[in-house]
This record gives sequence, C-alpha cells and structure tokens, in this order.
Amino acid sequence: MSQFERPNIAAMQGYSSGEQPLEKETIKLNTNENPFPASAKVQAALMDFATADLRVYPQPTADKLRDAIAAHHGLTRDHVMLTHAGDEALRLAITTFVEPGGTLGTTDPSYSLYPVLSKIQDATMQTLALEDDWSIPNTFAQAMTQHNAQLTCLVNPHAPSGHLTPLATIEAIAENISGVLLVDEAYIDFVDPSIAYSTKDLLNARDNVLVLRTFSKGYSLAGLRLGYLLGDPELIKPMLEKTRDSYNVDAISQALGLAAIEDQAYAQETWRVVREQRQVLSDALSAMGFSCPASEANFLLATMPEEIDAEGLYEALKAKSILVRYFPTPRLKDKLRITVGTAEQNEKLIATIRQLITR
Amino acid sequence: MSQFERPNIAAMQGYSSGEQPLEKETIKLNTNENPFPASAKVQAALMDFATADLRVYPQPTADKLRDAIAAHHGLTRDHVMLTHAGDEALRLAITTFVEPGGTLGTTDPSYSLYPVLSKIQDATMQTLALEDDWSIPNTFAQAMTQHNAQLTCLVNPHAPSGHLTPLATIEAIAENISGVLLVDEAYIDFVDPSIAYSTKDLLNARDNVLVLRTFSKGYSLAGLRLGYLLGDPELIKPMLEKTRDSYNVDAISQALGLAAIEDQAYAQETWRVVREQRQVLSDALSAMGFSCPASEANFLLATMPEEIDAEGLYEALKAKSILVRYFPTPRLKDKLRITVGTAEQNEKLIATIRQLITR
Repeated sequence: MSQFERPNIAAMQGYSSGEQPLEKETIKLNTNENPFPASAKVQAALMDFATADLRVYPQPTADKLRDAIAAHHGLTRDHVMLTHAGDEALRLAITTFVEPGGTLGTTDPSYSLYPVLSKIQDATMQTLALEDDWSIPNTFAQAMTQHNAQLTCLVNPHAPSGHLTPLATIEAIAENISGVLLVDEAYIDFVDPSIAYSTKDLLNARDNVLVLRTFSKGYSLAGLRLGYLLGDPELIKPMLEKTRDSYNVDAISQALGLAAIEDQAYAQETWRVVREQRQVLSDALSAMGFSCPASEANFLLATMPEEIDAEGLYEALKAKSILVRYFPTPRLKDKLRITVGTAEQNEKLIATIRQLITR
Repeated sequence: MSQFERPNIAAMQGYSSGEQPLEKETIKLNTNENPFPASAKVQAALMDFATADLRVYPQPTADKLRDAIAAHHGLTRDHVMLTHAGDEALRLAITTFVEPGGTLGTTDPSYSLYPVLSKIQDATMQTLALEDDWSIPNTFAQAMTQHNAQLTCLVNPHAPSGHLTPLATIEAIAENISGVLLVDEAYIDFVDPSIAYSTKDLLNARDNVLVLRTFSKGYSLAGLRLGYLLGDPELIKPMLEKTRDSYNVDAISQALGLAAIEDQAYAQETWRVVREQRQVLSDALSAMGFSCPASEANFLLATMPEEIDAEGLYEALKAKSILVRYFPTPRLKDKLRITVGTAEQNEKLIATIRQLITR
C-alpha cells in the first residue's frame, strides 16, 4: 500500500468485475450481456468513421446523440446527458449530490458497485432489506428519509432477482423521499412491452428523479462504454456543466450510439428473442426443481433444489466452460444468477445442468 | 439550480472547453491538437474491428495495451494504467490522494482544469507564481510542503508557455515535496529529442511521482479519449483497483491505442514536422514584433507588440475563421496561445496577422 492513499481508499475493497474469459468457446452467462451482436447499422457506422476525425476533440456534450435520445423518449435535450456507460452516471450522481460523510441509500441486495462508489466518496451506505418476493418494503422512502439519504439508487428491474417494481411504487417513493432518487434501468429494455413501463411522466412530474440507461445490454454495446441519464434539466445541469470529465464521450461512441438507437427494429427483435428464451430457460430450470421468480430482465435468479449446492454447481459449470454468477452472501448463497443466452447456449446450459445434477 | 446539489458544486464554475467550430474550413489553432491525422495503421485497426466484439465487456485493465506501453517506456505492466484521456487521470489522482478539505498544489499559471477538479473534491488550490521566464521558483517544493499539498501537479512542457523544466529540477522537486508529484506530460512528444528528456529513471527512483501521458496530442487522437499514468506500482494500484470506473477504457480505444503506439515511425515524423513548423512560426511572429519564449510544446505563447491588443487580435482572427486561444487573466491578457498548425495553416495565420496589424 502507498503511504499517499487517502485512509478511506486504503481501507476499502475495489469492485469485482464478472470473469471475462479469454477462450472464445466459453458460454458466458455471467455478466448479463445481450447474446446477440449490435445492429449491422452500428458496424456500418464504424466502417464509415474516418480516424482523421479523431484528431480534434469530440463535441463535448454529444448533442446530436442527445437530441436523438430526447426524441426517442419524448423529452427535451436538456433532460438528457450522455455518459461513459452507467458507471460514470452513478459516479457523477454521487459526486454531485452526496457529501463526503453523507448517505447513499439502496435496497439489500442491490448492485455491488454502489458500496464501492460510496466508499470512494467517503459516504455511508444505508440499505433496507427487500421482502422475500424481492419487492420493495412500503417503509422504504421513510427509511431513506430518516437516514438522510442524499441519493437513493434503485435498480429496476432489480438485479440480481429480475423483479420489476411497478411504476406507481416508484412514483410513491420519489414523492416521499427527501433526496434524489436514481432509477437504474440498465435492464429495462427486456421488460415485456405489454407492461407499458415508461418513466417519461415521472421525469416530467418530479424534480428529484434521475433515470439511468445504458447501451451495454439492450444495444449489445458493453464493450463501447456508453450510457445516459435522464432527469429534470436542473438536476442534469450540474453534472453536465461541472462534474463530468470535459469530453466524457468519445467521437466514435457518439457515432455508434446514434446508429444503435436509430435501429430500434433490430434492437427490439433481440429483446423479443431474449424474453422468449427467458421463458424457455425458466420453464426448463423449474422442471429440474430450481425455483426462479418472475424476471423482467435478461437473467434469472435460480434458487437451488435442496440437495444442490450453488457454489458447487457454479464450479462444475465453469469446469465445463459455462460461466454463471455466484454471490457468496447470506441471502444469495443458495442461488445462481444466469444470463439468458441464445437458444443454443441455453440448451447447452440445461443439458449440462441436467447431466451434473443427475449423476 | 437544483436544491439537491452539494454546496461546493453549486458554488463552482465548470471547465470552459476551447471552441470547437462546426465549419470544416476554420483554421483551428486554439486547442493544441496535432495538425496531422493519426497513422494509417490506426485507420486499419478501426476497419478490422468487428462491432460483434462490443457485445461483451472490454478487458477491464487493457492489459495488452499496458504491456505495449510498459515496453515502450522500459517499465513493467504494474507501472502503467490506461485512462479515459488525461482528464480521468487527473481526476483519479485527486480522488485517490487528496482529501476533501485537503490541498492540491500547482504553479500559476497552469492548466485551468486543476482548480475545477479541486473544487469538485472540495479541496483547496494553492499555487506559486512562475518566474518571469516561466521557470519554477526554487522555493516551489518547500512552498507546496508548507501548504501540505497532498498532490502537486506540474505541466511539463508548461502550458500555456511551452517552457520545459529540466529533469534535474523535476527530480529535486520530487525529492523535497511531502505529497505526490504528478508531472502532466501532455505535450512531451514535441520536445526536441536532442534534449533526451525521459522520466523513466525518476519513476524507478521515486515512489511519489506520477507521469501523465495522452494519445490526444502526440498520436492525433483527441477524439478518442485515451491516456495513461506511469508511476510506482504501489501508487498506481489504488487507482487501478479501486477508484477508476470498472471498465474505464473501451474495447475500440484499446485496439486503436495499440496500433498508434506501435507505429512510432509515423508519430515521430509528425512531431518532427511540428517542431520544424514551430520554429518557422516563431521566427515569423518575432519578425512582426511579437515575442515568443522558447517552446518545447506544439504551441507558442506570443506576447503582443505594445500597440496590439491581444483580445482584439483574437477577435479579428476569429472573424477570419482562424481560432487561437486568448486567456483574460492578468498575466496572460497581452498574449495569445497559438497551436502550431501545418505549413499551410501557419502561412495563412502569418499572412492574416500581417494584414490585420499593418492596416
């Protein structure tokens, strides 16, 4: 350790990324990526890009892409800011709204990056346990207000359960919470369209709500690092004009993000297939004795049948070049989080699990 | 203003980027970009890139590129971390080593981003004025230590003067300073090779030195947002493992950075031409009565002849579609910072200035 590190940094642990195998043949169902590649129009945009244009700084606020995103959501440019993926969006919200010594709130369990970012800011993390069915307790807003949470983060659909909190509940929390509410919609693209979940009215009604979106999952661009925040212009402004790095989104990401968001037909077809495969996978796991709560995300949280050890199954799958995610925490240690893959990947996973648990 | 902003954020001003004109015919000598495009091998690497590879997360620490950079500098992988351009490198150094309420030190004048980043961290900025010839006062290390600066940043070659501080002076400062010394070498590629300036020995000898490098200027990739930090492995480690965003360098940047650093012959030829043109531009400005201190960067800081108003000349050049940089501060308000362009751009600039000042 360096003597120069701040004490809070020296004392903390960093974020553990999911494993990124180097072998191409590995079936990678551990980090919730979209199983399909990005649109051919994204590849075309890349082939059209001249690196001579990289000589100069990018447009600092990615306005062309902001406008396309604003139009997509029926909001204005001032409601939108582009970020270097969701990670930057979360960091900026904490930097801008949470004092060192202040409080960041969320549910338990939730995204394991939140406590890491909280420690970097030297803030305290306060959580409230989710109900057994992964729904948010009625007392959540009150609890966060009592803790003086300057920022509260909710992942919806929730990770790692896939549980979708209804919009009316989110609205009620936003109304009854004293600080900023950030709704991390990293997995929202995989929600069944019949549910008609849309935060647009909430964003127009409330000045304390931020919505985080990412191109990583829905648009198959995890390797590009592109995301955005939606919110009241006064809430967006300090992050856009003060706390973000001056040129936070590179010129290639701006061009590729535009191509991706404009090809809605392609992206939506990948989401439809993922939903279809989610059902297939859930049915197959249930038939083998696993229990999977309803998921509106691109993953399932499978509780083991009584005789199966989750960590053991995780290791056995890994030995067969199939990666899923195991969390060694009290509430999750009898479960595995499994990303929905292609039909072929899911069949291989099911066949392998069947083989492993019946021998 | 939102009621939810932290008071330090609400009170501060953001960073002002140099103007980015939308008209392609503008001669842009205001933000110190390389006048030549990136290597053809960078374009080839882009054309080889399959966006299907963007489906998954990038290698989190960009190890292939780290190894190439380590080899380039004769250091080890552990001495290197890639960043989302120099901006992220500076932010991480402050986040990791400067407490809220602590002190960040630099010279006056210096890079105008430092006070912005300092305010975001709620730290105090302490500066010491440079000598009339832009050299660093002998009392600098002592002054920074008295201020308890946890991090001190020096731009070398200095911006906006182009003055190069000799390595022996940097070494003496590193030895006599109590905190971390970050040497921001954004413009180092344009230093005359006969000077043989290399921080490798300093990095091996000192555990409190960070060196910042960027692909923005030397490798003509300002639009890509790629840079790196060099330093003692114990100094690099907390930034690499804890405070940086989990996937801070996207997959395309990793591929293009590798192509750029491997084509040293091309990059070095652009640096040679820039040095040659720097001399041509300096001679022509001097002949018209401007005074330019020796610059080892890709820009000149030209002091106006007595009868010429710097802001007026800046505006007059802008009206003729030539952008240079004017800083309205006491010490710089009779000067313009002019990026060295191509021979054609420099000739156009000189002819236009001649026309403007002799009419």
